[in-house]
Amino acid sequence: MEVFKNVPQTIKYEGKDSDNPLAFKYYNPEEKVGGKTMEEHLRFSVAYWHTLTGDGSDPFGMGTMLRPWDTATDPMELAKARVRAAFEFMSKLGVKYFCFHDRDIAPEGRTLAETNKNLDEIVSLIKELMDETGIKLLWGTANLFSNPRFVHGAATSPNADVFAYAAAQVKKAMEITKELGGENYVFWGGREGYETLLNTDMELEQENFARFLHMAVDYAREIGFEGQFLIEPKPKEPTKHQYDFDAATVISFLKKYDLDKHFKLNIEANHATLAGHTFQHELHVSRINGMLGSVDANQGDLLLGWDTDQFPTNIYETTLAMYEILKNGGLEPGGLNFDAKVRRASFEPVDLFYAHIAGMDAFARGLKVAHKLLESGELEDFISERYKSYRNGIGEKIVKGEVGFKELEDYALNNGKITNVSGRQELLESIVNKYIIEA
Amino acid sequence: MEVFKNVPQTIKYEGKDSDNPLAFKYYNPEEKVGGKTMEEHLRFSVAYWHTLTGDGSDPFGMGTMLRPWDTATDPMELAKARVRAAFEFMSKLGVKYFCFHDRDIAPEGRTLAETNKNLDEIVSLIKELMDETGIKLLWGTANLFSNPRFVHGAATSPNADVFAYAAAQVKKAMEITKELGGENYVFWGGREGYETLLNTDMELEQENFARFLHMAVDYAREIGFEGQFLIEPKPKEPTKHQYDFDAATVISFLKKYDLDKHFKLNIEANHATLAGHTFQHELHVSRINGMLGSVDANQGDLLLGWDTDQFPTNIYETTLAMYEILKNGGLEPGGLNFDAKVRRASFEPVDLFYAHIAGMDAFARGLKVAHKLLESGELEDFISERYKSYRNGIGEKIVKGEVGFKELEDYALNNGKITNVSGRQELLESIVNKYIIEA
Amino acid sequence: MEVFKNVPQTIKYEGKDSDNPLAFKYYNPEEKVGGKTMEEHLRFSVAYWHTLTGDGSDPFGMGTMLRPWDTATDPMELAKARVRAAFEFMSKLGVKYFCFHDRDIAPEGRTLAETNKNLDEIVSLIKELMDETGIKLLWGTANLFSNPRFVHGAATSPNADVFAYAAAQVKKAMEITKELGGENYVFWGGREGYETLLNTDMELEQENFARFLHMAVDYAREIGFEGQFLIEPKPKEPTKHQYDFDAATVISFLKKYDLDKHFKLNIEANHATLAGHTFQHELHVSRINGMLGSVDANQGDLLLGWDTDQFPTNIYETTLAMYEILKNGGLEPGGLNFDAKVRRASFEPVDLFYAHIAGMDAFARGLKVAHKLLESGELEDFISERYKSYRNGIGEKIVKGEVGFKELEDYALNNGKITNVSGRQELLESIVNKYIIEA
Amino acid sequence: MEVFKNVPQTIKYEGKDSDNPLAFKYYNPEEKVGGKTMEEHLRFSVAYWHTLTGDGSDPFGMGTMLRPWDTATDPMELAKARVRAAFEFMSKLGVKYFCFHDRDIAPEGRTLAETNKNLDEIVSLIKELMDETGIKLLWGTANLFSNPRFVHGAATSPNADVFAYAAAQVKKAMEITKELGGENYVFWGGREGYETLLNTDMELEQENFARFLHMAVDYAREIGFEGQFLIEPKPKEPTKHQYDFDAATVISFLKKYDLDKHFKLNIEANHATLAGHTFQHELHVSRINGMLGSVDANQGDLLLGWDTDQFPTNIYETTLAMYEILKNGGLEPGGLNFDAKVRRASFEPVDLFYAHIAGMDAFARGLKVAHKLLESGELEDFISERYKSYRNGIGEKIVKGEVGFKELEDYALNNGKITNVSGRQELLESIVNKYIIEA
Ligand SMILES: [Co+2]
Ligand SMILES: [Co+2]
Ligand SMILES: [Co+2]
Ligand SMILES: [Co+2]
Ligand SMILES: [Co+2]
Ligand SMILES: [Co+2]
Ligand SMILES: [Co+2]
Ligand SMILES: [Co+2]
Repeated sequence: MEVFKNVPQTIKYEGKDSDNPLAFKYYNPEEKVGGKTMEEHLRFSVAYWHTLTGDGSDPFGMGTMLRPWDTATDPMELAKARVRAAFEFMSKLGVKYFCFHDRDIAPEGRTLAETNKNLDEIVSLIKELMDETGIKLLWGTANLFSNPRFVHGAATSPNADVFAYAAAQVKKAMEITKELGGENYVFWGGREGYETLLNTDMELEQENFARFLHMAVDYAREIGFEGQFLIEPKPKEPTKHQYDFDAATVISFLKKYDLDKHFKLNIEANHATLAGHTFQHELHVSRINGMLGSVDANQGDLLLGWDTDQFPTNIYETTLAMYEILKNGGLEPGGLNFDAKVRRASFEPVDLFYAHIAGMDAFARGLKVAHKLLESGELEDFISERYKSYRNGIGEKIVKGEVGFKELEDYALNNGKITNVSGRQELLESIVNKYIIEA
Repeated sequence: MEVFKNVPQTIKYEGKDSDNPLAFKYYNPEEKVGGKTMEEHLRFSVAYWHTLTGDGSDPFGMGTMLRPWDTATDPMELAKARVRAAFEFMSKLGVKYFCFHDRDIAPEGRTLAETNKNLDEIVSLIKELMDETGIKLLWGTANLFSNPRFVHGAATSPNADVFAYAAAQVKKAMEITKELGGENYVFWGGREGYETLLNTDMELEQENFARFLHMAVDYAREIGFEGQFLIEPKPKEPTKHQYDFDAATVISFLKKYDLDKHFKLNIEANHATLAGHTFQHELHVSRINGMLGSVDANQGDLLLGWDTDQFPTNIYETTLAMYEILKNGGLEPGGLNFDAKVRRASFEPVDLFYAHIAGMDAFARGLKVAHKLLESGELEDFISERYKSYRNGIGEKIVKGEVGFKELEDYALNNGKITNVSGRQELLESIVNKYIIEA
Repeated sequence: MEVFKNVPQTIKYEGKDSDNPLAFKYYNPEEKVGGKTMEEHLRFSVAYWHTLTGDGSDPFGMGTMLRPWDTATDPMELAKARVRAAFEFMSKLGVKYFCFHDRDIAPEGRTLAETNKNLDEIVSLIKELMDETGIKLLWGTANLFSNPRFVHGAATSPNADVFAYAAAQVKKAMEITKELGGENYVFWGGREGYETLLNTDMELEQENFARFLHMAVDYAREIGFEGQFLIEPKPKEPTKHQYDFDAATVISFLKKYDLDKHFKLNIEANHATLAGHTFQHELHVSRINGMLGSVDANQGDLLLGWDTDQFPTNIYETTLAMYEILKNGGLEPGGLNFDAKVRRASFEPVDLFYAHIAGMDAFARGLKVAHKLLESGELEDFISERYKSYRNGIGEKIVKGEVGFKELEDYALNNGKITNVSGRQELLESIVNKYIIEA
Repeated sequence: MEVFKNVPQTIKYEGKDSDNPLAFKYYNPEEKVGGKTMEEHLRFSVAYWHTLTGDGSDPFGMGTMLRPWDTATDPMELAKARVRAAFEFMSKLGVKYFCFHDRDIAPEGRTLAETNKNLDEIVSLIKELMDETGIKLLWGTANLFSNPRFVHGAATSPNADVFAYAAAQVKKAMEITKELGGENYVFWGGREGYETLLNTDMELEQENFARFLHMAVDYAREIGFEGQFLIEPKPKEPTKHQYDFDAATVISFLKKYDLDKHFKLNIEANHATLAGHTFQHELHVSRINGMLGSVDANQGDLLLGWDTDQFPTNIYETTLAMYEILKNGGLEPGGLNFDAKVRRASFEPVDLFYAHIAGMDAFARGLKVAHKLLESGELEDFISERYKSYRNGIGEKIVKGEVGFKELEDYALNNGKITNVSGRQELLESIVNKYIIEA
């Protein structure tokens, strides 16, 4: 049964002059950009939670979303209706990947066993539709934050029963991710953090979190799951302080507990800005540490202090993100997951298409701008020139470790007046503008 | 020549009922709190830069501070007048430690050699007055950010000549710190960061920073400097992004470059809040990682986005800070350095006394409150009870590494409904209030 | 049927040495503070929405609150159970006022007529229990934000049908507020704001909002409702920009549309800080404009960017709030409404008592500190002295309007060097500390 | 004597394909956009303080700017060298307006009389060069914040002598603004605010501020100055709270003190964001209140909490600003003043050109995009359609004031289910993107 009735079977690329709101202006999946097609570069993914189960509720009001599939009243029937809607949506949109939490796709039963059975039933249906459509699973994850049992965290709960439950849940989520050929498995630390230090044993909580991740690594090996493990940093919300604050904090944690070989990062734009960083900063930090694994493609409102998870439409942001991603050699096996929700006021089904198209076009444009920037070398050449003093003379000796404080003091005492060169920020910004407009 | 003429030779403890603004109401240096005197616990230090050389200027206006010693016009005479004022100030106040940057105490000369000569001359005078008064050096550091040569950073400058100059400067600063018996040496990454990623090679910059710190470690060993090395995190300001963002970031950096055995952290309250953390959080993170070395005692204005470096007068903050410090077994060889400046509008010399007294009294009160809280065990017992499930049964097995996902799934499948216990945040806050008022 | 079974019939004042978590340490209702009892000064109120209907859900998870009355499944039975629980709660706690939204107390029916009938039925029960207990209604209001019909606002909706519905709802809410003897009626602009200017006619929306308020004023006159009308500013959340941004904005709006004679402000602490102001600032601005009407007593977390509505436990905040309130001659007919919710993790029924006790004690302490500060005149005398130059000489002429730029230029040209006096911020902060601890 | 030696006599428009960093890519002064030339639309102005006297210093370091004219050591010679450099700069850049503070252009003397004499001498030179070049004065203002005498404010100082001095200074600044044919006069409340409420009489301070502005209005009438008076809002910095917080606050203040007929607003982008608003929001609020007078064209860094005054290069921002400005019918007699400073690291003279070119191109592009958006009507039509319910039926009656709560209740009771329409935020954002790229 078709649910998006007024949407054509395929959203087509019609180019920049199209007036059709249900067409791509910039995203042309087959178009080659530097040896790979746009589709290969961008690896877009639909986020099941926002797009299929999100209802538009917020702390001040009930859901607003009109979703034709919500007529089902039996939870399992509703779950299946959502699966079918999901595949219709992705097929029409032309997105080849999706991501989900276990609880997005199937309802909890009265017992964990029943819950797992529910999952299995839905997973069968998903598998069938994946086979039919060729759509693939970018990553799976477990929802360890919605149910009241996780009120104090999951792996970091003060209650060992909750740790055990979370372990069972992740075990199953890994199994179904494997079953569905998921290319990655994500840990987002839902409530792994604290509300107040007055009641918290942070050290034990972090040790337990590390134990939990080690168990996941061990279990993956045991079952032969070869997907990439990812951690998604977020600094605050829902808890006052989330342990996976930002890329640097997570890398520190992974190193401390000997987990850094097993994990990469899933960087979300809005989580970056909540932590006081630009999106590019978090991508860059991850990249130069060899930890950039995947991306949650959205955008925040920098004047608001919560995770608004908006669709990414700012071309500066998509350009600088794609710049980092191209320098990373792409994201594969990661991708660009739209962890973004239509605004509460964009409640009609067709808004889901408008929003994804807006995001895909913005990233397509960003890809082309970033590619041209890299091809021209304008930024990279500037940087190379700027740091050239480290490629010979005293700079080279510093880099090679051939000098210490004494030799450098000798050098400095005998060196004349130091001349620096402008950093040229304004000129560089105008160069980016030129590419944004003309790419 | 006395400069603080209307201030008594010694600021005395007169107790809570005193109306004398030039007396301590809570700080009683000899008073024992749990086996140590307040003076031993608190190890207060005066920050030379704010108190002796700060002029009250801000980005919108010239200096306002009235400083009787500023009559000297010759830079070296002015420097000496400041030294004498410093020791008069500290003697009257009863603070036993101070901290300085090299450029606070002596002016730059025309050449580095001359600058170093200036330093030597002032260091002699300081040493003399230290001997005379018994006042000690908590830590020294080098100012690698004020001079235009450091416009793009010091150890992270794109200009190798600047790196060399910075090395020479730190070498000398370490030497004079050693000469003066400094108990610590601090690195605050003044402009070690970036203004825009468009012109930045972050990876090279961070490697160079690590090289620089290794050289410092090597040189310390060479000259037999046995003080503690400290890094002081700050997230932003002056640069848009400072590499030493927060405690977690610095710990990550130190681990990555094999420096973590050689450094601890100097945590500043206002830098914590600029990074989106509470002061207690940064102290706590440092402490449980064995990295809490020293403290820059000040407070920020959480509604302002820059480093206001206010004197610490909020007793909640001083209480929670002292709580962490007591749990750390104190800070020695670190201390509580008042990296705080009187407000631009508090420009009279006596305000320096009022401000330090306000800060010392606030920390004295915080010490007593924290001590009583720990003595009573009200918070610690609550926490211990809260996490008891990890001390036997399935929790104990988790902690001991005796179970994995499979065993935990078995447990969870057979476990009944999970019961959690309230986190009791409001009650705990009212308990803290009781101690704040009644300690 | 008693629902708070383990709570005594009356929470008693046991004084500062009590260890009983279900007793007041500072709030002693009968105690006189400067001519009025604490109870008369503080006029505490329970917020029905947080305390009776709040379930602890947040954007990342379901409700956690254990509420014995939630066993009822029929909506009207549940509503009645809540009413009874409310009065048991308030009676035990000793709070004499409450506040509600229409939809807090009674469920929506299938039609507006049915909804109004539901309301009437519950209002009867409430009235009965008010008579029985002597508990009074501080204010009523209408919930114009939860239902999806208000997705684009209520009085500022682009849809005139929504405006009409909102009008009908407020009409009824005013009627029941009058019926219950409510002393005030509050307008909080739930979704009166915008998500994006791209789709917004701000001018029409604000005019419509003004029209709506004029209709309310007219209708109040018509039915003889003599309670005070209040507007509660909030800058953001749920919408990206709320029209009632802060006190100054609301006063400007009221003046522009000739509404300022009919309204005062209801100032909420957490809304103040979200707008970049201190709580005291918003109270002060309202007070000196003759617009301070009532207070939503809570506190925010300044490191978080959303409305956390925490119970007010910070004694600095309660002191400075009470300072403004005492200078305002009290709040009557307004009061101190606990627009505060127990943390999601404080889900046990008894936490409602702990939290309110914590807030009441914090305000009782704040009252005593503020009273002593005013009694001593330490702050007021300082201020009076600071501005004395406007009480004679050229200053007096300025204030009396006797001079203009020409006379002042003459004066300035002939005046010698200007001498300013320190603002003494640090000393004043230490004075506040003394009163906080010793009051 | 030419100071910008390597810069051509005129920065030319070379179009989008130019690689010449010293040429405009989008700003073509003669090009018509909807009936007016770009030059007429944009009315660019150079800010004397940032561009001629700014030295690149920040709270952590000395000035870095290399300015060939800084060789003069006599203050008046330096002032004259700056004037000549200013006119060379503006002539080459092709900017036809400038703005200054009194103290930017001439140094203070030992007395106010001498200071005024200095001013007169420099004003003569400026006038000469204005005549020679045809460059005009957009606005003048007085610096009432840099000198220590203004430590506690100027018109809001607790010291009446300071009020008098400020009055004398503004009197003179108005006179020279008139002398130079200035089209506007700006009040930016430098330190008109407070550091702490503990020492502040806000009511008296605001009354005094109003008295001061009334004196200015009176004096303007007296001397026949017919320029537009402007107030520039800013929420914080340098003081903790600035009285001219944002547009709404200033409008409220002006209304309260009967000043609203005499003043309009000068909206600065970075001040908007510091107040928690978008630039467009502040322009929009000013516009619909008939108060949009002029613009300080810059941009802030939303992840930083201070006024970074960066050159405006973000085309989204310039587009939405020009959208408001076009809807305002332009800004005349106001203009677009680059209250922007090159980054501390952009210290070479040529960076001044690069930065202004970047800003001018960004605004030229923004103008074209905004013009096309308006011409197409895509956004305005959407909005008109969205609010159509207020143009007939019940909505029309609401707007005409023909109905009250009773009639609306009748309507609502009889109205069926309400249907809302999506706000379409994502689609609208993608439309803006299309114009940004393709305009
Ligand atoms: Co995400
Ligand atoms: Co998010
Ligand atoms: Co510091
Ligand atoms: Co600081
Ligand atoms: Co409220
Ligand atoms: Co609130
Ligand atoms: Co400005
Ligand atoms: Co500015």
